[in-house]
Amino acid sequence: MNRTEVPPGTARAVRVGAGDLVRVIDVEGGQVGDVFAFTGSGRELTEHHSAAHTRAGIDRLFPAVGESFVTDRRRPILTLVEDTSPGEHDMLIPACDPARYAALGAPGHRSCAANLREALAEAGMGFTGPIPQPINVFMRIPVGEDGRLSWLTASSRPGDAVTLRAEMDCVIVVSACPQDLVRISDAGLSPLAIETVHNGGNPA
Amino acid sequence: MNRTEVPPGTARAVRVGAGDLVRVIDVEGGQVGDVFAFTGSGRELTEHHSAAHTRAGIDRLFPAVGESFVTDRRRPILTLVEDTSPGEHDMLIPACDPARYAALGAPGHRSCAANLREALAEAGMGFTGPIPQPINVFMRIPVGEDGRLSWLTASSRPGDAVTLRAEMDCVIVVSACPQDLVRISDAGLSPLAIETVHNGGNPA
Repeated sequence: MNRTEVPPGTARAVRVGAGDLVRVIDVEGGQVGDVFAFTGSGRELTEHHSAAHTRAGIDRLFPAVGESFVTDRRRPILTLVEDTSPGEHDMLIPACDPARYAALGAPGHRSCAANLREALAEAGMGFTGPIPQPINVFMRIPVGEDGRLSWLTASSRPGDAVTLRAEMDCVIVVSACPQDLVRISDAGLSPLAIETVHNGGNPA
Repeated sequence: MNRTEVPPGTARAVRVGAGDLVRVIDVEGGQVGDVFAFTGSGRELTEHHSAAHTRAGIDRLFPAVGESFVTDRRRPILTLVEDTSPGEHDMLIPACDPARYAALGAPGHRSCAANLREALAEAGMGFTGPIPQPINVFMRIPVGEDGRLSWLTASSRPGDAVTLRAEMDCVIVVSACPQDLVRISDAGLSPLAIETVHNGGNPA
């Protein structure tokens, strides 16, 4: 088992092989994480998890345990195999980015979009397309009457985790979301952790 | 006023300037349309409407009349100014594509994804990124309990239309969705039409 700490407001990339397990842990609780999965040949990432194609594949806004996230080519890339959190996650909202913080009056603020580019570059990987819509673990965006969206604070507790199985060799990026102007994470940004276990072993 | 017919199962691209009105008309009723908006400099389209960024901007699954679609850089690109249909549209589901039809047992079937590439190429425009998640006018994908999605048949009537105002110079592509294996459009594919009016005139 390998463990990668993701300091508050930053991101880390890990490479996994088909069959490996990836656990994303909310170490202190109440922290939103933006998760991305990419694949490709060599160092160029040409395919990525897709929120829209996943919704169409499962007829649901977010996978249930046992269901898979698919890529923009509709190929399964990650399966949700366990969730010890209250199970509230989001797949409707984009990564926070420089334009978002500029509109909030905080130009130059860290963002999940910039974190993603940094983490991939540090891992020696290239991705030139637009930022894919992330899998926002522990993020609470309930859909109400008439399709209205509410932005609530994460309800995850210390140690809560989602476990994903890689369905193909891929690069997974986890950003501990730096958003501290809209209260989607609990007071104070906190770290996440990524645990990976080779080829279907048990991370527990 | 310019009118462009969109034959069943095909797409057309139109260029519009900031302030122009674009009306997408369901000529015979019950026909889903995939709408895309791109901008850029010269012939290279580098920015596009974004479903995810639009949701975050309006706190809603689909804009109400008076609200805007924004790009992946969070800039307003289209505003919904009128809707004479029953008002059921989708912004959760991706464009149908070759992988979708292969999975449905119909490899080689026409698709909105291929239609988009063709229509842009015919208009002399280039776009190399992944297909953006479309604005699916007249498509009924209600969100039920626990985030479950239902695929219902379009309820739009002959002549129903949505009118959009361009907030910047852009290229708009409308695909009369060729999906005839899942009953999202009423029996038999039918045409759409695009009417454009320069600089805020009245298309009626």
